[in-house]
Amino acid sequence: MEIVSLKKFKTSEKYKRVMNRGRQNYAALFPVVKKIMAGVEKNGDEAIKKYTLKFDGVKIKNIRVSREEIKRACNKVSPRFIKALKQTSKNITQVSKDQIPQINKRPIKPAAGIGVWRNWKPIEKVGLYVPGGKAFYPSSVLMNAIPAKIAGCRQIVITTPPQKNGEIAPELLVTADTLGIKEVYKVGGAQAIAALTYGTKTIPKVYKIVGPGNAYVAAAKLAALMSGEAAIDSPAGPSEVFIIADKTANPKFIAADLMCDAEHGEDSAAILVTTETKLAKQVIQEIKVRINQFTTKDRIKKSIEQYGLFATVDSIDEAIDFANDYAPEHVQIMTAQAGRVAKKIINAGSVFIDDYTCKSAGDYATGANHVLPTGGSAKMFSGLSVSNFIRTMEYQKCTKPGLKKIKTATETFAEVEKLPAHKYSCSVRFNNQI
Amino acid sequence: MEIVSLKKFKTSEKYKRVMNRGRQNYAALFPVVKKIMAGVEKNGDEAIKKYTLKFDGVKIKNIRVSREEIKRACNKVSPRFIKALKQTSKNITQVSKDQIPQINKRPIKPAAGIGVWRNWKPIEKVGLYVPGGKAFYPSSVLMNAIPAKIAGCRQIVITTPPQKNGEIAPELLVTADTLGIKEVYKVGGAQAIAALTYGTKTIPKVYKIVGPGNAYVAAAKLAALMSGEAAIDSPAGPSEVFIIADKTANPKFIAADLMCDAEHGEDSAAILVTTETKLAKQVIQEIKVRINQFTTKDRIKKSIEQYGLFATVDSIDEAIDFANDYAPEHVQIMTAQAGRVAKKIINAGSVFIDDYTCKSAGDYATGANHVLPTGGSAKMFSGLSVSNFIRTMEYQKCTKPGLKKIKTATETFAEVEKLPAHKYSCSVRFNNQI
Repeated sequence: MEIVSLKKFKTSEKYKRVMNRGRQNYAALFPVVKKIMAGVEKNGDEAIKKYTLKFDGVKIKNIRVSREEIKRACNKVSPRFIKALKQTSKNITQVSKDQIPQINKRPIKPAAGIGVWRNWKPIEKVGLYVPGGKAFYPSSVLMNAIPAKIAGCRQIVITTPPQKNGEIAPELLVTADTLGIKEVYKVGGAQAIAALTYGTKTIPKVYKIVGPGNAYVAAAKLAALMSGEAAIDSPAGPSEVFIIADKTANPKFIAADLMCDAEHGEDSAAILVTTETKLAKQVIQEIKVRINQFTTKDRIKKSIEQYGLFATVDSIDEAIDFANDYAPEHVQIMTAQAGRVAKKIINAGSVFIDDYTCKSAGDYATGANHVLPTGGSAKMFSGLSVSNFIRTMEYQKCTKPGLKKIKTATETFAEVEKLPAHKYSCSVRFNNQI
Repeated sequence: MEIVSLKKFKTSEKYKRVMNRGRQNYAALFPVVKKIMAGVEKNGDEAIKKYTLKFDGVKIKNIRVSREEIKRACNKVSPRFIKALKQTSKNITQVSKDQIPQINKRPIKPAAGIGVWRNWKPIEKVGLYVPGGKAFYPSSVLMNAIPAKIAGCRQIVITTPPQKNGEIAPELLVTADTLGIKEVYKVGGAQAIAALTYGTKTIPKVYKIVGPGNAYVAAAKLAALMSGEAAIDSPAGPSEVFIIADKTANPKFIAADLMCDAEHGEDSAAILVTTETKLAKQVIQEIKVRINQFTTKDRIKKSIEQYGLFATVDSIDEAIDFANDYAPEHVQIMTAQAGRVAKKIINAGSVFIDDYTCKSAGDYATGANHVLPTGGSAKMFSGLSVSNFIRTMEYQKCTKPGLKKIKTATETFAEVEKLPAHKYSCSVRFNNQI
């Protein structure tokens, strides 16, 4: 952990690695993934069971989680968890409802007799991939499923890999149950994505697949997209936090939030950009003091070493420019007039304003969605919201006088584009001879 | 061209082909595409020139279209085209402006002291791929570029393959110029997508690549997405029209619109589903009479043979169910009370209501966008709109009392998910000892 000036850092070896964080060579996994996809397409549930035995080392009898298993799970989780679940669900629901698109359903009329309008519809069937086994995240179930529910998706199903004992973590089952999701299937990896893509006797085919997973899951989702059978969510990589701080910031809070992000995994990126060298020193000192108290300390160390950064800048504007270039998943602003700084951030997934908007509260409980663009993709993608679970449809209606107004334009384009039946499709409507 | 009952058709050999139309094996093209992508990433403009000579047989000196070339193009196109261009641009602009997202920028407050809100930003840099050579479509430039302009994208660039004489069709250059697009580059195929993905000395890197192309272009766009360097638009395949008609419909109009769609290419799909056998017979008869007048007759014949359908149903509701299952790009409703039928369509790109909303007017001039989901992907994708050129950003802000309200929930989730630094990121803010 060393402090560098941002200008110097930009000429260093590490710069490219930091900027290109989270890049994955999915194409390299395609041969394996394609084989699994083809196996499930052909042999359905049998293939699911075969691959689960092979990759997870678990023999599953019933692919679908039973009512009894869900009841057992309800008895296993703590009342404290139930309470936390209810509060966070309520907050996420409230924020998500605000994402329902406001579409003008009244026709736009480019001319009298021509009307064009839109409407939105939920995607009917969606599949949610939930990581399982050793690491499992009920919060991800909330973040993915609540917007789908609010969009009005008719069928929401979950696939998640079984633990070694053949069961699913009770917290995951209780979370799904609380949200009213009745279909949970014990299958993970590329075989789960294949099942959602093509459908099996037990698992339904869906039209969109969302949720985080390992590299094989991500590659299988891309294969699903390419097959034309399913849409997928934006690619999500390792977690990132980018903290912009001035002398008003609290080094203890910054150290905590950097470690909070870094503990996600060795590929996570925790970045501090500050006008104050002294503050950066205090943050590093604080990390050194605190890190050993965390069971996740090895991951924290490794990720800071690989993708972390403690950089000094001459001004907050220099930090803002770098943030917009880096396009972080999370940006935390701990400066005077943080709201003003926030307005200058144009490329980021979520902007945390002020000292008490801590990273983990945003991950879990403020109601904001934690599924956000990573690896610089905030330049082109949005975080998950209700929008990801709907489609818009376009409507158009012309009267004969309306069509007449655009007849020449239509015919001219048809001529230029050498499509004579396009011209005829319009002209036949005005042809009295036929 | 034969008439079948829909029920019988569903048990036929052809059914699967019709339902799975437009599927492409992009993975098979990956080895070639990856080589081209890597070549351009490494050798930039030199690779562009090399591949253009190799694949298009054209030696290009200047990759960027010059002001002089644009001026020459303006002198070559007809005043009639200019007039059509202005009218259609105006209509598309008016419809697109209605697509600017209405976002509530005032915070949602799940509890006092917690605020969550959103805002949208344009994607800064977008690249538009425009097919060229023998077939070129100025209408596609309008449909892709106008929503990008209205979204406020700062930099919009076009790549399009040169014709054999090394030039670009004047109608394309004039269309780009009319829209204020200053950067047009003479490069097509996978090499164009590679240039937009990585940037070269001449061609800028962009964050999103849109526009139709051949299978190599589509595969290269998927490779661009996988690289993490660029987002892409929804996959677009061959054109489709699905006409629902009852006894009130005009067989001449139906025949014209089916041929209008079928002339796009051999893979296009032209489908009629009607309650009236007599009408279907008249339509087929009309196609036989008219088809020979079109230079595109071979394509029309082939596509109707391969993917076309003349099906009879017992009721309009049966036709609607099939439409929702087929999920057509365009659905045309030529029935009594067509507006009511339209409301029951849930899976389609664009819905054309009534006899005078002809296919080609919707393709060119009503102001509706003609970039629509194909191959059944209307179940999960929307047509192109301003939404494709923006991203939303999330904001969150807690006060100390606000954070306190979600402290226990945050800490509980952190415990369950075994992320101790997540717990600490919250608790440190209330720790008076440190």
